[in-house]
Amino acid sequence: MDIKHYMKALGQNARAASRQMVRADTSTKNRALLTIAAAIRRDKDALLAANRADVDAARAAGMDDAMLDRLALSEKSIATMAEGLEQIASLADPIGEITDLKYRPSGIQVGRMRVPLGVIGIIYEARPNVTVDAAGLCLKSGNAAILRGGSEAIRCNQALAALVQEGLHAAGLPAAAVQVVETTDRAAVGELITMKDYVDVIVPRGGKGLIERISNEARIPVIKHLDGNCHVYVDDEADEAKALRIVENSKTQRLGTCNTTESLLVARAVAATMLPRLADMLISKGVEIRGCAETQKLVPQTKVATEEDYHTEFLAAIVSCKVVSGLDEAIEHINKYSSQHTEAIVTENYTKARRFLREVDSSSVMVNASTRFADGFEYGLGAEIGISTDKIHARGPVGLEGLTSQKYIVLGDGQVRA
Amino acid sequence: MDIKHYMKALGQNARAASRQMVRADTSTKNRALLTIAAAIRRDKDALLAANRADVDAARAAGMDDAMLDRLALSEKSIATMAEGLEQIASLADPIGEITDLKYRPSGIQVGRMRVPLGVIGIIYEARPNVTVDAAGLCLKSGNAAILRGGSEAIRCNQALAALVQEGLHAAGLPAAAVQVVETTDRAAVGELITMKDYVDVIVPRGGKGLIERISNEARIPVIKHLDGNCHVYVDDEADEAKALRIVENSKTQRLGTCNTTESLLVARAVAATMLPRLADMLISKGVEIRGCAETQKLVPQTKVATEEDYHTEFLAAIVSCKVVSGLDEAIEHINKYSSQHTEAIVTENYTKARRFLREVDSSSVMVNASTRFADGFEYGLGAEIGISTDKIHARGPVGLEGLTSQKYIVLGDGQVRA
Repeated sequence: MDIKHYMKALGQNARAASRQMVRADTSTKNRALLTIAAAIRRDKDALLAANRADVDAARAAGMDDAMLDRLALSEKSIATMAEGLEQIASLADPIGEITDLKYRPSGIQVGRMRVPLGVIGIIYEARPNVTVDAAGLCLKSGNAAILRGGSEAIRCNQALAALVQEGLHAAGLPAAAVQVVETTDRAAVGELITMKDYVDVIVPRGGKGLIERISNEARIPVIKHLDGNCHVYVDDEADEAKALRIVENSKTQRLGTCNTTESLLVARAVAATMLPRLADMLISKGVEIRGCAETQKLVPQTKVATEEDYHTEFLAAIVSCKVVSGLDEAIEHINKYSSQHTEAIVTENYTKARRFLREVDSSSVMVNASTRFADGFEYGLGAEIGISTDKIHARGPVGLEGLTSQKYIVLGDGQVRA
Repeated sequence: MDIKHYMKALGQNARAASRQMVRADTSTKNRALLTIAAAIRRDKDALLAANRADVDAARAAGMDDAMLDRLALSEKSIATMAEGLEQIASLADPIGEITDLKYRPSGIQVGRMRVPLGVIGIIYEARPNVTVDAAGLCLKSGNAAILRGGSEAIRCNQALAALVQEGLHAAGLPAAAVQVVETTDRAAVGELITMKDYVDVIVPRGGKGLIERISNEARIPVIKHLDGNCHVYVDDEADEAKALRIVENSKTQRLGTCNTTESLLVARAVAATMLPRLADMLISKGVEIRGCAETQKLVPQTKVATEEDYHTEFLAAIVSCKVVSGLDEAIEHINKYSSQHTEAIVTENYTKARRFLREVDSSSVMVNASTRFADGFEYGLGAEIGISTDKIHARGPVGLEGLTSQKYIVLGDGQVRA
């Protein structure tokens, strides 16, 4: 197969389909989504069998357990895929929404209309549910999608792609609205991320290595999600019960997610009382503490934290810890070491809460809530195509709106410029 | 001078200043803007002298007339700079605006807060007014700016930079909130567009060559403005008087601007009546018509248009022209040949107007209005840092909002994730 030629054809088909998708009305798009959801429920046994074949092959090829875990589907995860599509169908259609339409002194009326980005290229590893989530979000937001899943999930992804086609066909939408790259050749990725004329944005989902490589090589804008080195700052006016609950949930509810807290900052004025209790709770849950000298004095089990530790997303039962003088040092530390994903303050002080919200430069900033809430579903976006740690375009969980843009519209009665 | 070291220091200073700018309140920022405006009016003679020295040196170095025209300041253009700053001061402060704050079933309240992007790098040629416009927009939007003007304008840019410093100082804002690159070494641009840790976005302003080079070499997101190959489509249900007025203004009011119309499409059903009148009007204004075979039959003075002509931003007294079957062909032609800047339809038909607005994929789409309106000031943005032909992040005229981002904020009472 000539990869260059094959990918170009995919791109041209996607561009043509995107011109039809921008016209598709809401009920047509919803019909496609609900048909796909029903087909997934109907074919769950076949999907599980295809997934089992992928998992067996990956295991035989020596894939590690964490990756196998991400690859494997269950009855429950298949039901969740279908529910996700039903939720997307129930969300308001963002396309065509007109806002801020105002008359100007010249007599023209100027506003903005929300429109699809065009063609979205999605590159992902292992998780087959991305095939369905991404197809559903792109479809509802009026975009065409080119999906490039990992070779380890090819059987299941192809089975899911067939069901997506069934939904598009039932609704009378173009087959090329969602295309799955059928080759496992890595050169296909190189083409996808440089086809400026046919692809408007790339969304990579996977490990930091994959995302950095794609960001460096892409000639198309990338909505990227790098690491989540999230912080909780326990202020000297924190409510202790809230602090314990929030630190426990933020750090230990799930160790391997991007919104898990990796670093704990405690105000000096309350460190002697609160830090030992926070540490006891964490240690009782098996969490290793890597802290500053003051932490070590208060919590003897502490290992000395290196500079590197404060930069690290552990994704493990480890937390870095630092005693800080107060809000200013906490904000400064966070803005220096954080990956700008999610940070929380625990405080009862109104003014400090307001300052933390304004001055911390991260995609989600929270007061008295667990960092684990940073998630498209928890935020009410229905689903997410990823969590952006960029500042340009979409920031934080990216749902339908992140796959759209706003153009200006001008309505006149023959006005010309003076 | 060690350019790498020098630019890194600028970047570090800008990053530190941006942390202070995010905290600056509205009246402080406005005080700085108004002080700079007053200083510009006060020092207009010195600014004109500095500009004259730049113009003389550039002429001696053989700069062409068009470029000299852009470089030259007048009493009027100096007054316009000051007015621009006063307008920016009068605009609402976008920073800190919280929208969509809603309770979720978990009990947390989720919303979005508008925040500065951080550090903006601006690279421009000739026009010294960009120094002031860019400084003003970045300052009001709470960003730090690094400005890199052309070597041909260095004297005037330095004089303006001193006035900007005067305003920052008077308001108690950090001097590094606006820094002007003091070297004319081209290596400085290479550093600026790759300092990921210190610069959040690059805005290049200048010719297509400059912008393409920067886009290709930057390792930082670029808000770019490429060409403006704008279209007017005269529908078969157009009002002829409006069509004549709009085509005249769109094409001939100014020939060299990016929102000038370069291509005219006319519906076949009215071509025999309207096209000769449109062509007579254009020819009487000295515009050369390059058209399709049907245009040529109706307008004998027509030169045959090449495929290349339909792709071209002439910036001159030339218009490409094509007779099309109707709305569908017009939309298809525009989406194929346009640079996605600005397009207008002239029609009295409601349904066709709605379809044109939705389906034409350009940053500004207009009904019965001149393409010349595509401009930050005409749209009510006060000023613009450029007109984006990208779809990601800002699209169309970029004012204060395009220099900001929205982060998520979460307000809780100790909620944790179940």
